[in-house]
Amino acid sequence: MIETKRYELVVIGSGPAGQKAAIAAAKMKKRVAVIDRKRMTGGVCIHTGTIPSKTLREAILYLSGFSQRLFYGSDYRVKDRISVQDLTHRVRTVIQHEVEIVRSQLKRNAIDLFSGEARFTGPNSVVVVSEEGVQRLDSERFLIAVGTRPAHTDEVPLDGDKIFDSDQLLLREKIPSSMIVVGAGVIGLEYASMFAALGCEITLIDQRRDLLPFVDRELIEALCFHLRRLDTSFRLGETLAKTEVDERGRVVAYLKSGKKCAAEALLYCVGRQANTDVLGVEQAGLAPDDRGRLVVNEFFQTSVPHIYAAGDVIGFPALASTSMEQGRLAAMHAFGAKTNSRPDLLPYGIYSVPEMSMVGMTEEEATKKNIPYAVGTARYDELAKGQMLGDETGFLKILFDPDTHRVMGVHAIGERATEIIHIGQAVLAHEGTMDYFRDAVFNYPTLAEAYKVAAFDGLNRL
Amino acid sequence: MIETKRYELVVIGSGPAGQKAAIAAAKMKKRVAVIDRKRMTGGVCIHTGTIPSKTLREAILYLSGFSQRLFYGSDYRVKDRISVQDLTHRVRTVIQHEVEIVRSQLKRNAIDLFSGEARFTGPNSVVVVSEEGVQRLDSERFLIAVGTRPAHTDEVPLDGDKIFDSDQLLLREKIPSSMIVVGAGVIGLEYASMFAALGCEITLIDQRRDLLPFVDRELIEALCFHLRRLDTSFRLGETLAKTEVDERGRVVAYLKSGKKCAAEALLYCVGRQANTDVLGVEQAGLAPDDRGRLVVNEFFQTSVPHIYAAGDVIGFPALASTSMEQGRLAAMHAFGAKTNSRPDLLPYGIYSVPEMSMVGMTEEEATKKNIPYAVGTARYDELAKGQMLGDETGFLKILFDPDTHRVMGVHAIGERATEIIHIGQAVLAHEGTMDYFRDAVFNYPTLAEAYKVAAFDGLNRL
Repeated sequence: MIETKRYELVVIGSGPAGQKAAIAAAKMKKRVAVIDRKRMTGGVCIHTGTIPSKTLREAILYLSGFSQRLFYGSDYRVKDRISVQDLTHRVRTVIQHEVEIVRSQLKRNAIDLFSGEARFTGPNSVVVVSEEGVQRLDSERFLIAVGTRPAHTDEVPLDGDKIFDSDQLLLREKIPSSMIVVGAGVIGLEYASMFAALGCEITLIDQRRDLLPFVDRELIEALCFHLRRLDTSFRLGETLAKTEVDERGRVVAYLKSGKKCAAEALLYCVGRQANTDVLGVEQAGLAPDDRGRLVVNEFFQTSVPHIYAAGDVIGFPALASTSMEQGRLAAMHAFGAKTNSRPDLLPYGIYSVPEMSMVGMTEEEATKKNIPYAVGTARYDELAKGQMLGDETGFLKILFDPDTHRVMGVHAIGERATEIIHIGQAVLAHEGTMDYFRDAVFNYPTLAEAYKVAAFDGLNRL
Repeated sequence: MIETKRYELVVIGSGPAGQKAAIAAAKMKKRVAVIDRKRMTGGVCIHTGTIPSKTLREAILYLSGFSQRLFYGSDYRVKDRISVQDLTHRVRTVIQHEVEIVRSQLKRNAIDLFSGEARFTGPNSVVVVSEEGVQRLDSERFLIAVGTRPAHTDEVPLDGDKIFDSDQLLLREKIPSSMIVVGAGVIGLEYASMFAALGCEITLIDQRRDLLPFVDRELIEALCFHLRRLDTSFRLGETLAKTEVDERGRVVAYLKSGKKCAAEALLYCVGRQANTDVLGVEQAGLAPDDRGRLVVNEFFQTSVPHIYAAGDVIGFPALASTSMEQGRLAAMHAFGAKTNSRPDLLPYGIYSVPEMSMVGMTEEEATKKNIPYAVGTARYDELAKGQMLGDETGFLKILFDPDTHRVMGVHAIGERATEIIHIGQAVLAHEGTMDYFRDAVFNYPTLAEAYKVAAFDGLNRL
């Protein structure tokens, strides 16, 4: 006899979307359970995704002395030979801490946490298989937030040693001197630029001609400029035909155009496969797409209205920040609570080296919609703080309405871009104008001053 | 025969206040001249004040691995022996760059720059004595923005070697292993905490019992906690009687209370002397106070209405950011232009280690005015980014109206506090509420997320 527990919301997956949905529902006094696999509390975000990659990035920036090279010369390094141990030590510390935080948050909100494999047995029922046995959870509502894993393909057989995906990257013992990165999406670009900062020679291959189409073109150009200065080669609009390891032990990638390139290692990050396949979603009446993803409406309901989905499992943008918001909104809708979602105010943060961030409209979007705009730009090298931090190439640009001066969008690349974007976001949310930035007093020296410099630039051009 | 040039505004001093006043007037199509001493373009801010101290700070934070000790152990250092050359190399690079920026900004705005000593010969006339000879500048209006220099006293005879002021600090060849810092104002605390981060044992002496009374007490407590962990001793409410160098070459400070303390060096930073004494301001009808400062009204007019004063020469808060704003406001008023000054929105940035920043009301101020408030706090160790940057002790707190949820003030200590304070400033300026922070989506991971965490904390407590 399987024990059955009854809930008002069962959340499958304890990543950013699942956590925030569970907490939102618990705050509405609902009985909530969260299920995740053993040792996966916090989800991919904490264990193999955002947290390790961003922690690794901070470690690389520091240990490689990357932003300090302006002052100490391009050969300057904190450590001459950076080992994977140096990098992963820090990653492990942060992962442990984050798992604790998630556990204690769930506990504080009286949310039941189940460690095991979940499987739908019907539209209102899942079983959880764990070391303790099998349990059945019945619930009025579900949220599927099971996330994704790297997608694989027969053309690129991974061996985890010379050819690997982003999950395997952190398990490697050595930093390669050269690496082919297949797939120039957010994940591919983040890792490519981090390894380039470590001195690894990168070849970046993508079928698409344009990198990250949702990002301002000037930012992408700046990122490419940086990557090229760090010896990165681009093979865009090219399709990978096959890979092999040659007699010298090098990975060779053959492109359909007839070109080939070789490197010590190959990182494959084309697409992600959603984890719905192990969940038996068909039992609940759901049909995922070929990547395992679920389609949802604006309220994050799947085709079965009491089953919601949020986070990476529903696709773009698949950022931890947006997933949290989706989870919260799904839970609010599930229990009829009022929300005030402002998708136009969602910031995007891309943790490449240098980092990029944006909020609001891009030039491309405004042009497409025939919305007139003016631009004000500030280069970091005009700012004392940019100098002090050794960032000579970062910049921030603001799009605004030339008549009303209303801020329309902010785009930044460079040190702390993901932090200072929120200043623009706050002004955008409150329907503020460029005049605010012109008149505001900013701490000196800061990178936030870029807003004032950009405001003067933009208003003077009118 | 002395050549005479006529202007609509003559600015004496090319620091932050002078620059911004000159540029504001030039943009109003006024004929403007700026006078500063040879090799002092940019003023104390660039040459001995803000720029060198904040650049030094960045270099110390990096080279000492300060914020990285959480990960790499407290003995971890980028360089085992950090030399003054390592530190000052970077400082010189930034100074040169900043001087160039100031020169080119003045030039671009068609502002005449005179290098020499200015002296009033009457209320509408100064002479400039330079290597090229003597010139006379007549003007309808003046702005005095001559800044300050470290004040000295007979009780503490400086030798520039063992006993020195903050200007002499950068000329020293060796980092002392122990240092007495006399005067725990902004400058004293910034240098004390920087040298503490370098491993120098600090004794901090001040007559006042309370450090930086305009700063939130919780921030000051946190700063003191940090300093104590770095072996700093506090001697507050104590007056220095005299200093001497003993037979072993150590500096001994005798306190009026009978205590004494000894160290390898002593940094004296009690007060600043305004540079009006070399300016012959009496000729213009002005009478500075005993520290050389000029008293101004709300429009930055001195007792002689066509002579304005701004920046450090008028006293508190003597920050580069506020001086810029004062200069701009003075020029606007001088030519009858409309301004919208919002002193309630001025941010304060203190570049101690860790840094502190604030905008809006403090708890102490609200209590004194009988204004009810609620508080929401976020600790950096609750934030993934805090973990990644190795800042476990930073925090951000928001004061807000418990009824309307309107934001009243933001106070932060920790990494990037001086940057992220501007998010709160923007919301404050637009009369936003805590609900905005609760509902906004923040990039993950960032320190800016502290606003959301603090909003949940504050609103849940209501």
